[in-house]
Amino acid sequence: MATATVIHRERSAARIERDIDTLATSDYTLSSEAIRRYAYTHVYRNTLDYFTRELEQIGFVVSEDAVGTLVARNRPAGDPAFGVGSHCDSNRNGGKYDGAMGVVTALEVCRLNEEQGLGLALQLISFLEEEGSGFGQMLLGSRIIAQRVTEEELKERFRALDDGRSFWEHAEEAGYEPARWRDCSHVLDDLTGWIEMHIEQARVLQDTGDRIGIVDAIAGYVHADVVVHGRGDHAGATPMDLRLDPTLVLAETALELERLARGAGRGTVGTIGEIEVDPGLINAIASRVRFSLDIRGPEDAAYRGVAHEIASYAAEGAERRGMRAEYVQRQTLAATPMDGRIVGALEQAAAGTGEPYRRMHSGAAHDTMCVADRVPTAMVFVPCKDGVSHHPAEEADPADAALAAEIILTAIASLR
Amino acid sequence: MATATVIHRERSAARIERDIDTLATSDYTLSSEAIRRYAYTHVYRNTLDYFTRELEQIGFVVSEDAVGTLVARNRPAGDPAFGVGSHCDSNRNGGKYDGAMGVVTALEVCRLNEEQGLGLALQLISFLEEEGSGFGQMLLGSRIIAQRVTEEELKERFRALDDGRSFWEHAEEAGYEPARWRDCSHVLDDLTGWIEMHIEQARVLQDTGDRIGIVDAIAGYVHADVVVHGRGDHAGATPMDLRLDPTLVLAETALELERLARGAGRGTVGTIGEIEVDPGLINAIASRVRFSLDIRGPEDAAYRGVAHEIASYAAEGAERRGMRAEYVQRQTLAATPMDGRIVGALEQAAAGTGEPYRRMHSGAAHDTMCVADRVPTAMVFVPCKDGVSHHPAEEADPADAALAAEIILTAIASLR
Repeated sequence: MATATVIHRERSAARIERDIDTLATSDYTLSSEAIRRYAYTHVYRNTLDYFTRELEQIGFVVSEDAVGTLVARNRPAGDPAFGVGSHCDSNRNGGKYDGAMGVVTALEVCRLNEEQGLGLALQLISFLEEEGSGFGQMLLGSRIIAQRVTEEELKERFRALDDGRSFWEHAEEAGYEPARWRDCSHVLDDLTGWIEMHIEQARVLQDTGDRIGIVDAIAGYVHADVVVHGRGDHAGATPMDLRLDPTLVLAETALELERLARGAGRGTVGTIGEIEVDPGLINAIASRVRFSLDIRGPEDAAYRGVAHEIASYAAEGAERRGMRAEYVQRQTLAATPMDGRIVGALEQAAAGTGEPYRRMHSGAAHDTMCVADRVPTAMVFVPCKDGVSHHPAEEADPADAALAAEIILTAIASLR
Repeated sequence: MATATVIHRERSAARIERDIDTLATSDYTLSSEAIRRYAYTHVYRNTLDYFTRELEQIGFVVSEDAVGTLVARNRPAGDPAFGVGSHCDSNRNGGKYDGAMGVVTALEVCRLNEEQGLGLALQLISFLEEEGSGFGQMLLGSRIIAQRVTEEELKERFRALDDGRSFWEHAEEAGYEPARWRDCSHVLDDLTGWIEMHIEQARVLQDTGDRIGIVDAIAGYVHADVVVHGRGDHAGATPMDLRLDPTLVLAETALELERLARGAGRGTVGTIGEIEVDPGLINAIASRVRFSLDIRGPEDAAYRGVAHEIASYAAEGAERRGMRAEYVQRQTLAATPMDGRIVGALEQAAAGTGEPYRRMHSGAAHDTMCVADRVPTAMVFVPCKDGVSHHPAEEADPADAALAAEIILTAIASLR
């Protein structure tokens, strides 16, 4: 066990706050009401330039991969290094902290390493397009690095929300070489480990009074739709006994999903976030209802079991009422367990600070899921006010980020 | 008891079919895919002209009130007469039968009266804007006649869906005198009774095998919205125990509404036809859900009781889950009982034909609700296929309409 690295937390918090506030000024966001920053805009370019300047000041060599993920190292290419970072793009109506605070805290880890002469070999990564604000594709930069995309997607299918032109075309116009996208995988070649810090995006830490979350798994999920086919009839003229009202199948399924998710436990959650009613008139029994299912958890068997059961329940529930329900899966992704050794090191480092922390899983997806394919990884969460993220009202405390920087630094040092 | 008036039903059915098919040709509808006919369009003018020609051929004097409701009489003004008719405007995506079949059948009643020399004093009315397709106001013509509008509404608030200009302006442009709207009440001055025939707009007659419905009440209703205020959180990152998910209050309320409406019996129905979820994203727990309530029935105490109970249930259900629900009433209208003497005469006439019929209430609203303020009224329903109305697929049998004409004629004769 390595000794705890003690830092001047107030100074780190002040630097983190300064970085975050700088990145919220007009050079770094397209909107004055929110943070709006995505790939290949001038404000995104300014953001990469900001990190480049700050990292070069502390002796890092900064480069960008073939599509624009920023990579900074304090060791020559080929030498092993420990990775830290997150993403610096935002939601279209985003806040100052989601993503940016993770990169800024990674930068602070790098600064502290140099300042305190710890001599850790570090590689900072700022991923491209985690939020999908530019091209509607979440985790795009890290998926390219993990080679979880196809050339056809980059050339044809992934198109800018703003003008409909392809990702490929935009990347070339910004001076990158998307044709070399397969080389992006080399970004991870020299990493011995990876830690991403991020705001929690939920209220667990706030509500439990913990300042740090040590993430031991990122939830997998099933995204699906249920479409219930009823019969559109006149709401006034159709007796209760002659109805085929699909909203009642929705109602039963929503309550059953809650029951199943609670019953499955182990961090399983289930949500109906989209409901679409046809024709959607006050005086018409719906002919058709579509609703989405978002079912997640850190344990694949648990949340997939819920997805399976709710699909059957909806089908049987519709049939019981003389209707028909279809279950259509949109997407599924397995849970990503974090590396036990890194999680252990982080936990020990957190315990060493005397500050309240907890082990937890991440319900949200993160770039770290793509890193975990090839590199031992973990994540650190800090609280965000009322769990709000993806919104200008997003708020997190730089003091918590400074604490996270200290814990990450201690953990990396202990893993040497 | 009067003798049954026996008619040549096949000939009447053929005439009714010819009228309806004529009114479905391009001179009489703005759309080639549906019947689309509303006040002050040229196709609406053509329709009034068609009825005027047909009625003048059988000796009726035809006029229009100050805003365009058509009134035709075979007796001088001031002489008592029995009223028959319906409306001849349609839904924007309507079918051939809703409204038009009622006016056409009333026309057939007038024709038969002349042909068979029955000598009944009759007044046909074709109401304006029952569907609200022109100005978004249901039963507009009959509400003007019943003086259930204000001058300010006609001048300012009721505006054309097409161009936003006022009802008043459109009426003047079409050659009417909306400033004389108070005179419209005189349309009902000479009526000794009123019978409207309409397609049922539900499947009760079809499913019970009855050819005729004798309406003994038109349902009253409560239209309201429930807004449940939850807390918008991340669907993946927020444990089941920390959620304030308003869709679950919707679900519980939908099932309770079904239970309450069934329990109330006496024709009470309850429907949730509109559901609006904020923000409506697959990966976000809703922050807010709004849903509509349409609660109706022929007995005011019964359906109003359900509305009252469901409002409390939603509020308590939300509170139980730590949320807040508001109940906002949009509109309410009491049930309209039909006149016992006319209902009895219709029932006797129906029984006399030997054809299957039933007494029933109307769940849908009709112009007759406004006539009933001042005149003893009843309605006759004929089946429509699968209960479909307000849709191009609407279908009804002219033979049933001819049977209705015979029954109406017999009933009016018996009431003399």
